[in-house]
Amino acid sequence: MSGGGGEAVSGLNMSRRIRRTPFTSKVEAHGVRGFSVVNHMLLPKAFQASVEDDYWHLREHVQLWDVSCQRQVEIAGPDAERLVQWMTPRDLSGAEQGQCLYVPLVDDKGGMINDPVLLKLAGDHFWLSIADSDVLLWARGLALGAGLNVSVEEPDVSPLAIQGPKAELVMAAVFGERVRDVKFFGFAHAKFCGERQVIARSGYSRQGGFEVYLNDAQLGPALWDALWQAGEPHGIRPGCPNLIERIEGGLLSYGNEMTRDNNPFECGLEKFCDLDGPADFLGKTALCRIRDKGHAREIRGIVFGGEACPPCGTPWPVMAGGSDGEQIGQITSAAYSPRLSQNIGLSMIERPHWQAGQKVTVHCADGTARPGVVSDLPFS
Amino acid sequence: MSGGGGEAVSGLNMSRRIRRTPFTSKVEAHGVRGFSVVNHMLLPKAFQASVEDDYWHLREHVQLWDVSCQRQVEIAGPDAERLVQWMTPRDLSGAEQGQCLYVPLVDDKGGMINDPVLLKLAGDHFWLSIADSDVLLWARGLALGAGLNVSVEEPDVSPLAIQGPKAELVMAAVFGERVRDVKFFGFAHAKFCGERQVIARSGYSRQGGFEVYLNDAQLGPALWDALWQAGEPHGIRPGCPNLIERIEGGLLSYGNEMTRDNNPFECGLEKFCDLDGPADFLGKTALCRIRDKGHAREIRGIVFGGEACPPCGTPWPVMAGGSDGEQIGQITSAAYSPRLSQNIGLSMIERPHWQAGQKVTVHCADGTARPGVVSDLPFS
Repeated sequence: MSGGGGEAVSGLNMSRRIRRTPFTSKVEAHGVRGFSVVNHMLLPKAFQASVEDDYWHLREHVQLWDVSCQRQVEIAGPDAERLVQWMTPRDLSGAEQGQCLYVPLVDDKGGMINDPVLLKLAGDHFWLSIADSDVLLWARGLALGAGLNVSVEEPDVSPLAIQGPKAELVMAAVFGERVRDVKFFGFAHAKFCGERQVIARSGYSRQGGFEVYLNDAQLGPALWDALWQAGEPHGIRPGCPNLIERIEGGLLSYGNEMTRDNNPFECGLEKFCDLDGPADFLGKTALCRIRDKGHAREIRGIVFGGEACPPCGTPWPVMAGGSDGEQIGQITSAAYSPRLSQNIGLSMIERPHWQAGQKVTVHCADGTARPGVVSDLPFS
Repeated sequence: MSGGGGEAVSGLNMSRRIRRTPFTSKVEAHGVRGFSVVNHMLLPKAFQASVEDDYWHLREHVQLWDVSCQRQVEIAGPDAERLVQWMTPRDLSGAEQGQCLYVPLVDDKGGMINDPVLLKLAGDHFWLSIADSDVLLWARGLALGAGLNVSVEEPDVSPLAIQGPKAELVMAAVFGERVRDVKFFGFAHAKFCGERQVIARSGYSRQGGFEVYLNDAQLGPALWDALWQAGEPHGIRPGCPNLIERIEGGLLSYGNEMTRDNNPFECGLEKFCDLDGPADFLGKTALCRIRDKGHAREIRGIVFGGEACPPCGTPWPVMAGGSDGEQIGQITSAAYSPRLSQNIGLSMIERPHWQAGQKVTVHCADGTARPGVVSDLPFS
């Protein structure tokens, strides 16, 4: 069998609309057990080992992650810089070629549209490496509406992440020693099979590593194999963004921790909002008003007790003090941390209750009411 | 257990980002076996019975389908009509309140952005009941870019479909005899639990039926139960868009049969392109150019042999004549039709080969090369 798309994984009904990636046949060969769907594309979410086992492995070794679903929205042309700046409150005037920048995208009301990583390829050429919403339609709509001279396309680029403390060893073996010079949230170019590739020191974990923005889907299996072979002496495994690790690290997920109903202040992204500069961007007036008035809720950690909590598929109510207190927020992602020997969750908490140390009660999906405490992020 | 989101279905990793619907707890109680993800929301895709068994049942009886993922993009305000017309080549000048209209949405190059059903609620108030792309971002981007005086929102509206020849019986029992007067692709209002609901005679099957655009998610379980109880004497079942039935009927699926790379002519939607009228819409110049030049490929049916084909997860190459012929298209959805005793597929076929009766060879995902014939749609 070629892994040509015929095999339905139980529980997720496959079709062309749920796009396979250049690496899907590889993760299938490694026994992938589950997927999520991000940007109309498969994201592997579970392999043979448990999430907890993968967590420990990620902290000590190196993993290959198929994160092709981080699609690129390529914005190029004379008005490219103007459009990109228009989409984010982060001041981009000082951005340099070769730099990755985390940029909240907001609409006219200051609501979060996405929270991509921006790659500045040239003064008139950008990629937005996006979370789960159709930023291509957003950007193209804005450009057409405003009559901007710019193209907005999805290029044939599929990120593959190499994460963990041994990632640099593996990358150097495949791409040469020069990759060691790539700075955190910087990128450089390197060749693979004759094609120029973008290599960034970045990724959706706190354990260090790289993302190869694979140019040319046909090279997917060869890239996977090359990194895999280089990683075998270092105990490489197939993996995916690890729920425990990302919650511990306070890494947010668009659609989970935040939606269009949230503004960047609520998401703890105030440092990316340059409201007093000259930059012209959507939502500036709305964000100034929110800043002046003070935002009503903000993302916080919650540490809570009881046995290992179930997965958080819908928000769990968080109550002030005891179980009969008023609702003061909700947990949107949760996991048991084997390192902290506690359950931990990412939550949106109302201002009067968001100080670290506040006592709360968490209503889990399993029907239990569990005592907890508000915590700063990342969890220490 | 309350079905509160903690239970991961094997194969699809659940999180808040993959939104549950007002009816998810009901389909879980009915033993749903698989989902797809559409518009960041769960779409049930398999229950206890086989697709073939559900197919026969749908043709004879009545089914309840949770199609909440058909999200509504609500466009309202003084410039609402102008924005909606700008988004589609279909002339909306004659559209009447209470009418549903199938409207291809295209961009400036004539590429398909979505193929929703438009509901005209009032002269300045529309819903777009969308397929799988973020039309909200597209419409809001266009409106903000062009400075239109309009709001673009996703209301708390979740469609529930009642499909099959006995649907009218069931609907009349719940909503009264007046629903019998609703015309095909028309809608009316009716009350449920004191809330005004939109009821349309429409749905993603060729077996007749209705869609209730549930206003107020909290009423979901009550609406499901009311229709279920009314349907029990008529053998009602939980169901979902049936792959066999929709392929036989030539019903297209955005993301499967067409993408942004396709124009409406290729999708057989020429009758919805009013290029010679006064309407001002995106892509008019591009579509006129395509019409004048002639489009290069178009959606067709393919009837092909061999045993029941596997699911079509990635496009299958279609070759001219025998297996060693050149590739002249691809199948994007396929199923075995028990009624026609043949495999059938929806495909995009190049012009020189798109006439009904043309002999082709289909390369299935299971490695087989199967003789086939081009067919008109719908399959008869």
